[in-house]
Amino acid sequence: MTALTPNPSFSLTMRIEIPQQPGMLARILQAIAEVGGDLGHINLVKHSRDFTVRDVNVAAASTEHAEAIVNAVKEQTHCRILEVFDRTFNLHQGGKITVTSKIPLQGQDDLAMAYTPGVGRICTAIAQEPDQVHRLTVKGHMVAIVTDGSAVLGLGNLGPEAALPVMEGKAMLFQEFGGLDAFPICLDTQDVDEIVQAVKHIAPVFGGVNLEDISAPRCFEVETRLKQELDIPIFHDDQHGTAIVSLAALFNALKLVNKTLSQVRIVINGAGAAGVAIARLLRQAGVTDIFLCDSKGIISLDRTDLTPGKKEFAVKQAGNLALAMTNADVFLGVSAPGVVSVEMVKSMAPNPIVFAMANPIPEIQPELVRDIVAVMATGRSDYPNQINNVLAFPGVFKGALGCRAKALTTEMFLQAAQAIAELVTPSELNREFIVPSVFDRRVAPAVAAAVEHCARHQGLARI
Amino acid sequence: MTALTPNPSFSLTMRIEIPQQPGMLARILQAIAEVGGDLGHINLVKHSRDFTVRDVNVAAASTEHAEAIVNAVKEQTHCRILEVFDRTFNLHQGGKITVTSKIPLQGQDDLAMAYTPGVGRICTAIAQEPDQVHRLTVKGHMVAIVTDGSAVLGLGNLGPEAALPVMEGKAMLFQEFGGLDAFPICLDTQDVDEIVQAVKHIAPVFGGVNLEDISAPRCFEVETRLKQELDIPIFHDDQHGTAIVSLAALFNALKLVNKTLSQVRIVINGAGAAGVAIARLLRQAGVTDIFLCDSKGIISLDRTDLTPGKKEFAVKQAGNLALAMTNADVFLGVSAPGVVSVEMVKSMAPNPIVFAMANPIPEIQPELVRDIVAVMATGRSDYPNQINNVLAFPGVFKGALGCRAKALTTEMFLQAAQAIAELVTPSELNREFIVPSVFDRRVAPAVAAAVEHCARHQGLARI
Repeated sequence: MTALTPNPSFSLTMRIEIPQQPGMLARILQAIAEVGGDLGHINLVKHSRDFTVRDVNVAAASTEHAEAIVNAVKEQTHCRILEVFDRTFNLHQGGKITVTSKIPLQGQDDLAMAYTPGVGRICTAIAQEPDQVHRLTVKGHMVAIVTDGSAVLGLGNLGPEAALPVMEGKAMLFQEFGGLDAFPICLDTQDVDEIVQAVKHIAPVFGGVNLEDISAPRCFEVETRLKQELDIPIFHDDQHGTAIVSLAALFNALKLVNKTLSQVRIVINGAGAAGVAIARLLRQAGVTDIFLCDSKGIISLDRTDLTPGKKEFAVKQAGNLALAMTNADVFLGVSAPGVVSVEMVKSMAPNPIVFAMANPIPEIQPELVRDIVAVMATGRSDYPNQINNVLAFPGVFKGALGCRAKALTTEMFLQAAQAIAELVTPSELNREFIVPSVFDRRVAPAVAAAVEHCARHQGLARI
Repeated sequence: MTALTPNPSFSLTMRIEIPQQPGMLARILQAIAEVGGDLGHINLVKHSRDFTVRDVNVAAASTEHAEAIVNAVKEQTHCRILEVFDRTFNLHQGGKITVTSKIPLQGQDDLAMAYTPGVGRICTAIAQEPDQVHRLTVKGHMVAIVTDGSAVLGLGNLGPEAALPVMEGKAMLFQEFGGLDAFPICLDTQDVDEIVQAVKHIAPVFGGVNLEDISAPRCFEVETRLKQELDIPIFHDDQHGTAIVSLAALFNALKLVNKTLSQVRIVINGAGAAGVAIARLLRQAGVTDIFLCDSKGIISLDRTDLTPGKKEFAVKQAGNLALAMTNADVFLGVSAPGVVSVEMVKSMAPNPIVFAMANPIPEIQPELVRDIVAVMATGRSDYPNQINNVLAFPGVFKGALGCRAKALTTEMFLQAAQAIAELVTPSELNREFIVPSVFDRRVAPAVAAAVEHCARHQGLARI
């Protein structure tokens, strides 16, 4: 596995007691730097005549690297490590989200209005006029984040409990970036019928459903059936979120190389939920020359092992990924670490565009092809051009719930991608800036406006 | 229907423009008082040379009464009503709860730890050691509030959407009084098998399940089956919450009349979830002489229409409620407004105890029997001795989740009732103070401690 750069996900906090002598802190920091630790905040905890106690935050590249850093500090015999925290584990203690009241509950009056007997009037009003549930409850801005834990990040089938930290993280992002409430629903079943049934049963509380980390090809059927059976927006983020942001980035990357969607040959590696969804959205956007590849190579007509999703993109040409990439204009990877070689990138058409989006370790490390590619993007925050779904899903739901759209459509996804791409102005656009930052506060409103506009145009808005 | 006293649940806010002349505000307030409105806060909104604008809050007894109040103000021709809000509806706009992040999400570092890639380490840790889900996610303090909307408050089968405002209110109470997170699950099915299945499917996210407003007798089967199939606390609040708080109040009421549980004859009117659960808990507490009544009268052995829950309490004596109450020491009503007459109360044994807990309108208005009863309690906040489940459920779950109890037991409920009762000291105890206030911050911790202690004693605590 390719070596990773130090990353906050492996960061640790060392509480260190340091003698009160000049140069002592510098020695420790030097030791950390020598083993490749990336220093973050250094906080003064205590200060006495003889010692200072400091919390030193260091990003490591792996658990082993974190241990090496701690050992390097231990070798500084003049100081003493009082405690070591793993910052990521620390932050997850007790979970990351909370359900709280939006209104004060300070006395009998508050109780009498928010709970019995007053709440009975609200219940009656909704029973008499069911549409009021969108106005008088959380439903109007509440999203279910539904998973069965079968495809958790790139980690595989870890089950519903182990998926929960991701879903909590997603709920945080919905609130932070979309101003929406969202709640994790981790289902203790991986049976399609049971998933569909469970989501239908809990639907009354939710204004929309975000499907997450459900493995292909079941995810396609779950989404299709829920769309048929519920009249609220259903969105499988691994498919459409990834597709929207990839397309947004591609719009801008192509401007840099003066090519158009209808001209380019695109190789998509990875034919799971994301790969198939990207291929579908690209086709709707006007791309005609697509090689979809899976771990066995090009999805070709002669293959007998294809799921319906893959079959849609089967081509005459058979062969491996290396063959597919020869003379290709664009490589989009949603597959596995390190599967692309420098030679493969060199074999591409002039001014190649490479989006190596495997997480957390890309299909090829950007450093290796920096001088070969015209534009490079990854899924990581520590390289330029991060393709991150958070650019899409908060705005998509914000727009859809804002106008109570009955459903989400491909047209909305195309418009959302366009809206994201357009936030990078022509003067800002360069090979290291093809998508806005996830912290760009304009993104979600822009995506929401595009989705809502589209919903109205397509007659799908209900308010 | 008996006339109600004005109540905040029917309160309104009138924004009134009042000429700047002495005595004008007084005239308006006089007009409101004359039609029986109960004045609350009066806020100054705007002040000019000619006019003041004030928000006048008034509690009414009903929607019609609220209208009469508005009309009375309108008759004051010198002033002008600019706007009228229904305070209860206003407060419910957009729902009452929100799901938010407990940790800041301000930069790439936060994202990298709370979401990808860092979160993957947490997922892996849980997959390897499933028990960690209680520590590293919200599960350890998250309660599902599950309903099918079949018995919403006293309003009947309104369905899952109309039940949502109650479940949101409950979630607020869990947080406010128990420091627990809770989330409404309003199921779009009233089939027992499907309810059980749905709850099992969503269980991975929750540390406990609070069943709510599910009608009898289905509620008994749902609870029994979930207890068999899940190893987290299952609690049907309409049953056990009501039973715990009723018993707590009864412990203290009996002290006032110098009677004991084993001596008294108790009439329970209402043989739904609450009535049967109260009867069961009383029996476990040592009561032997119980007349359980439903709308057809005493649950007697000669009846052929009894559900299993009712059968447990069938007695030889047949007859109507009036007969049951003759010479009874205690009346516990969980039934319907106004079904008890003054004569019935007069026919009871000396020093009668009457808990008229029908909501929002009690079985008999306290005013009517004030001088006849020894102790009177209701479910209402505007009379003394409010029997309110909020005294029980936050503490029950706080205790159970705190020690990761496998299940809840009758012994825990008895101890919880005792703990609530004991918060009223002998010197405080009087006929108008038999249970602590719902705002008494000692209640939930006391109940939690009792439940946890009992769980450890019974070998049901897992941490």
